[in-house]
Amino acid sequence: MSQSTTHTLAFDATDPIALTQALIRCPSVTPAEAGALALLEIVLAAEGFSVQRPVFSEPGMPDIENLYARIGNEAPVLVIAGHSDVVPPGDVTSWTHEPFAAEIVDGTLYGRGACDMKGGLASMVAAVIRYRRDNPQAPGSIAFLVTGDEEGPAVNGTVKLLEWTKARGERFDHCLLGEPTNPATMSDMLKIGRRGSLTGKLTVHGIQGHVGYPHLAQNPIRGMVRLLAGLDATPLDAGTEHFDPSNLEVTTLDVGNPATNVIPALARAVFNIRFNDLWTPETLAGEIERRLREAAGNTVRYEIVFEPTNAVAFLTQPGPFVTMVADAVEAETGKRPALSTTGGTSDARFIKNYCPVVEYGVVGQTMHQIDERVSLADLRALERITHRLLSAYFAAASAA
Amino acid sequence: MSQSTTHTLAFDATDPIALTQALIRCPSVTPAEAGALALLEIVLAAEGFSVQRPVFSEPGMPDIENLYARIGNEAPVLVIAGHSDVVPPGDVTSWTHEPFAAEIVDGTLYGRGACDMKGGLASMVAAVIRYRRDNPQAPGSIAFLVTGDEEGPAVNGTVKLLEWTKARGERFDHCLLGEPTNPATMSDMLKIGRRGSLTGKLTVHGIQGHVGYPHLAQNPIRGMVRLLAGLDATPLDAGTEHFDPSNLEVTTLDVGNPATNVIPALARAVFNIRFNDLWTPETLAGEIERRLREAAGNTVRYEIVFEPTNAVAFLTQPGPFVTMVADAVEAETGKRPALSTTGGTSDARFIKNYCPVVEYGVVGQTMHQIDERVSLADLRALERITHRLLSAYFAAASAA
Ligand SMILES: [Zn+2]
Ligand SMILES: [Zn+2]
Repeated sequence: MSQSTTHTLAFDATDPIALTQALIRCPSVTPAEAGALALLEIVLAAEGFSVQRPVFSEPGMPDIENLYARIGNEAPVLVIAGHSDVVPPGDVTSWTHEPFAAEIVDGTLYGRGACDMKGGLASMVAAVIRYRRDNPQAPGSIAFLVTGDEEGPAVNGTVKLLEWTKARGERFDHCLLGEPTNPATMSDMLKIGRRGSLTGKLTVHGIQGHVGYPHLAQNPIRGMVRLLAGLDATPLDAGTEHFDPSNLEVTTLDVGNPATNVIPALARAVFNIRFNDLWTPETLAGEIERRLREAAGNTVRYEIVFEPTNAVAFLTQPGPFVTMVADAVEAETGKRPALSTTGGTSDARFIKNYCPVVEYGVVGQTMHQIDERVSLADLRALERITHRLLSAYFAAASAA
Repeated sequence: MSQSTTHTLAFDATDPIALTQALIRCPSVTPAEAGALALLEIVLAAEGFSVQRPVFSEPGMPDIENLYARIGNEAPVLVIAGHSDVVPPGDVTSWTHEPFAAEIVDGTLYGRGACDMKGGLASMVAAVIRYRRDNPQAPGSIAFLVTGDEEGPAVNGTVKLLEWTKARGERFDHCLLGEPTNPATMSDMLKIGRRGSLTGKLTVHGIQGHVGYPHLAQNPIRGMVRLLAGLDATPLDAGTEHFDPSNLEVTTLDVGNPATNVIPALARAVFNIRFNDLWTPETLAGEIERRLREAAGNTVRYEIVFEPTNAVAFLTQPGPFVTMVADAVEAETGKRPALSTTGGTSDARFIKNYCPVVEYGVVGQTMHQIDERVSLADLRALERITHRLLSAYFAAASAA
């Protein structure tokens, strides 16, 4: 519901540090909202945003709160996307600072979500508010798309929120997703795409028997080694212009036979492939099946099952929007960021079906770890970079 | 203690079937004696054997009863060796006949130990008694060496019993060990040796990490596949005159990583090698270490630990004694048995340090299984074969 009540904040909403602290103090471990979206609603509504708080449900899963806010009625619509939920703090006693206290020590802000991604979200909100206060008549629109279910099953989050906006007639031109993209410094990298992810479960069947009578048995571990060597024998590809080579990692391999004089009956392995834009999950599964058939010959009996995946590989082609983000980063940091497609998956894989999406945020080194933290200087830099992007984006819009 | 009391048996000790039944009805699951050795003591003492029942101990292990019996004071000494203990019956409700009831149905005797090896032991005892009754003045000596700890840790069994006889000045010329050696029929095989057994535990160390950042991690499963492929790439040997090729089986391989997006830190495998007389445990471990080093190169970090083993490969060279046993089998079955060294290990690996040892017994198809059984015809055949061997052995002794 759009709020008309007036709230008084204890801090200035254009201060990215104060806003990050306020968000971290909401312990919004998935699926808890914990006041994080309520805070964003108050902050954005106070600036004239129309704010919606749709809740999505699925049988057997907790309800999830989400937020959609927009200011302006015209195109172009620049969407800033993110998530307010965080992963659990883990062993709280191992933290040198309370995970939800948002303490600042020597220019560093500590807390769960500091870099993933309350710091990024807060810096972008602060930049938008400063930009809109200074440019109340700016053309176009700015929207926020914030989910409370990115770190969880991601079923009642961005996917449904995007469908919900589409059903309401919302159309987006470009998206900036504020996930932490930088390995070490703020000038390191933008992400203009992500690899896809495909998981397979491989079972090799043998015939159980005594090691003293190997001709009466068939060792499935021998078959498994042969199949895995076959999968790994030649690279899946050599990479593409913007992508690393696709990569397969066997993540576990288990037999569980305690008897050293028994040849076991079964061996199981799980592998995960991070694949580039040369593949779809379907073509990749086909290639894996072909390699397994070839390695198995007539001697290895096996089953392969692929888990359903919505993590396809995608690329936002470099062009004016990507250039504009990179220019803003370079102007503030003095160095041009790399255009990368590395790392894990993110909600960008859903957003790309609606509009071009670029990911840029703070330094992600400590994400999901004990003592997650962000430097105050990086929060300020991200605020300035976002402000610079907004100025350039809407200046181009008025010129067009 | 040698008994002078007279016991009356409910059956004739020259009946291999009745004697097998009486032994099966003693539920002598390792380490329990359960009356089995007491029964043998009564039977043998009644025929004039001097019977000893040494008990061996080891801290932390149950005491084990054993039996040594001898008749005659002269060389040559033919030893008949065996064990009175049996493996547990497993799921008793799955048996179609009570495991310790020794029921006979349609010419088959059912029960735990029927083939491994109360049937073999009883048939040999019956044959010895018939032979000695018919030939009270036969030259040489016959001894029985029976342990209650062959199916268990085998620490307080044959090894100590042999040392005990040696300390008492006993010297043996030849040994017949009554383990079930025949795969399907009584004319199938003698065992004139056994392969050795060596178990190794292999650990490959990697670097844990996220599958999306493989350059920051190192997958130990890739290293493990490489090492195992290296171990298996070329045969260890081509076999020898009396031995199959040495054979390596990986018996388990475990990682235990539930997370499909995590590259694990460790992979562990266990393998067992059954090796022939080209190797000692030491030379074989050296060859395995060489293969691992070669497969690992500079890229795979691993550890290999070999379990201590007393299972060396050994061969009783074919010669007059082996020929005498094979002749007896052929004479009773009409077919000459193969001279084999296949299968698991047995106490013959300890006996061979004292005298040449040949293994021959009933059909072992059902050993250690539900509904273990032996055919009455095979018990009778084994009694006749043993009797024929005794006649030939001591005839040769008097001729010499
Ligand atoms: Zn995140
Ligand atoms: Zn046995």
